[in-house]
Amino acid sequence: MKAELLYEGKAKKVYRKEGTMDQLVLAYKNDATAFNGKKKASFSGKGRLNNAISAQIFPYLLENGVETHFIEKINETEQLVWQTEIIPLEVVVRNLAAGSITKRLAIEVKTPFDPPVLELFYKDDALNDPLINDQHAFVLCNVTEAELEEIKKTALKVNRVLSELFQSINLKLVDFKLEFGRLASGCIVLADEISPDTCRLWDLDTEEKMDKDVFREDIGDLLGVYNEILRRLEDRS
Amino acid sequence: MKAELLYEGKAKKVYRKEGTMDQLVLAYKNDATAFNGKKKASFSGKGRLNNAISAQIFPYLLENGVETHFIEKINETEQLVWQTEIIPLEVVVRNLAAGSITKRLAIEVKTPFDPPVLELFYKDDALNDPLINDQHAFVLCNVTEAELEEIKKTALKVNRVLSELFQSINLKLVDFKLEFGRLASGCIVLADEISPDTCRLWDLDTEEKMDKDVFREDIGDLLGVYNEILRRLEDRS
Repeated sequence: MKAELLYEGKAKKVYRKEGTMDQLVLAYKNDATAFNGKKKASFSGKGRLNNAISAQIFPYLLENGVETHFIEKINETEQLVWQTEIIPLEVVVRNLAAGSITKRLAIEVKTPFDPPVLELFYKDDALNDPLINDQHAFVLCNVTEAELEEIKKTALKVNRVLSELFQSINLKLVDFKLEFGRLASGCIVLADEISPDTCRLWDLDTEEKMDKDVFREDIGDLLGVYNEILRRLEDRS
Repeated sequence: MKAELLYEGKAKKVYRKEGTMDQLVLAYKNDATAFNGKKKASFSGKGRLNNAISAQIFPYLLENGVETHFIEKINETEQLVWQTEIIPLEVVVRNLAAGSITKRLAIEVKTPFDPPVLELFYKDDALNDPLINDQHAFVLCNVTEAELEEIKKTALKVNRVLSELFQSINLKLVDFKLEFGRLASGCIVLADEISPDTCRLWDLDTEEKMDKDVFREDIGDLLGVYNEILRRLEDRS
């Protein structure tokens, strides 16, 4: 099924699918990293959980009109996706203030953003993924003005669709990070993963953190929390 | 002429003009600061030079259709301005890469930006004046979408007008920082100062730096350079 390893990231390995020119196998690892790789650990079973959660979310987005790179889940830890050229941009959408923005701009945790705040970060580990504005993106990220508009529109649509999905399983979508990639056709689609590694999710009743902050802040059982997210997604009617 | 001291900044003192409710006296100090105040020195005569240079530039901008807070130069180190509520925003326009952007985004010095790159920074010393995007400005800076559009349009107009002015005296306007303030009427006008403290200016022939970088980088005679800028402005036909 897999041929050569193309790339190994912090959370996934990327292989070419044997016999294809345009399909990749994403293999989810058990590693958790935070603070730009400064904090690291491994959780046996995390790869399986994120693969399963992403494989719930991507088809749901497609049903709701969002094009993604996802093709199908292949096995417990791997999924098949269309090959894209990753755009070096992290698109963050925030409904409530949490994480970096609370320190960077001294905004109180839980401050609601209405409309949601959208932020662009330049994907560059050596520079620490700095915040950028639209014009920086044109200079650095090989996107046109129309493409960036489309990316932002899609990110806000993903926010609406996923906020509703998570609300239906008693979770608040606090914020999340998206990445986009360009297909061979030139079209830009949602790529990477969507999981509790890339979303902040708070239980609507208890406000319990049910995402990677459990690892960042050492406040609980990461696998238990990710398992619970998957269970709620699978059990929704 | 001056009544109470309202505010003392790094480069200027601000007094209310006696007998008025809406006019201020800006007194230019001899202090130079850089790197958010971490580097400091005093240059006898610098206040006089920046006052004189600003008093050349603000009327020139008005002639070219840019509304500013400037009323008139009162004496060697002081100018009269309309009182505004300062919008906590630093608007930077860049024609060539220099200074912070070259490190922050690993862009090579002298990389030309066409169109010019416009950046917003949140004026907050404690946060180190962080880069922000438009949406942060709506949340933090008490400006509407229409007002921010107007501010950006004005900043780009100032760039066109001043690039031409400096070109005519053999200087390249590399980048500059503007601040805006709100008059009692609610209108937003250009405020603060425009001087070699707030602009990067390079001699067109020699590429010699003729601005505060002389102080930042300890590469020459600050007062000599500022004097030369003033001489060229006064001598232009």
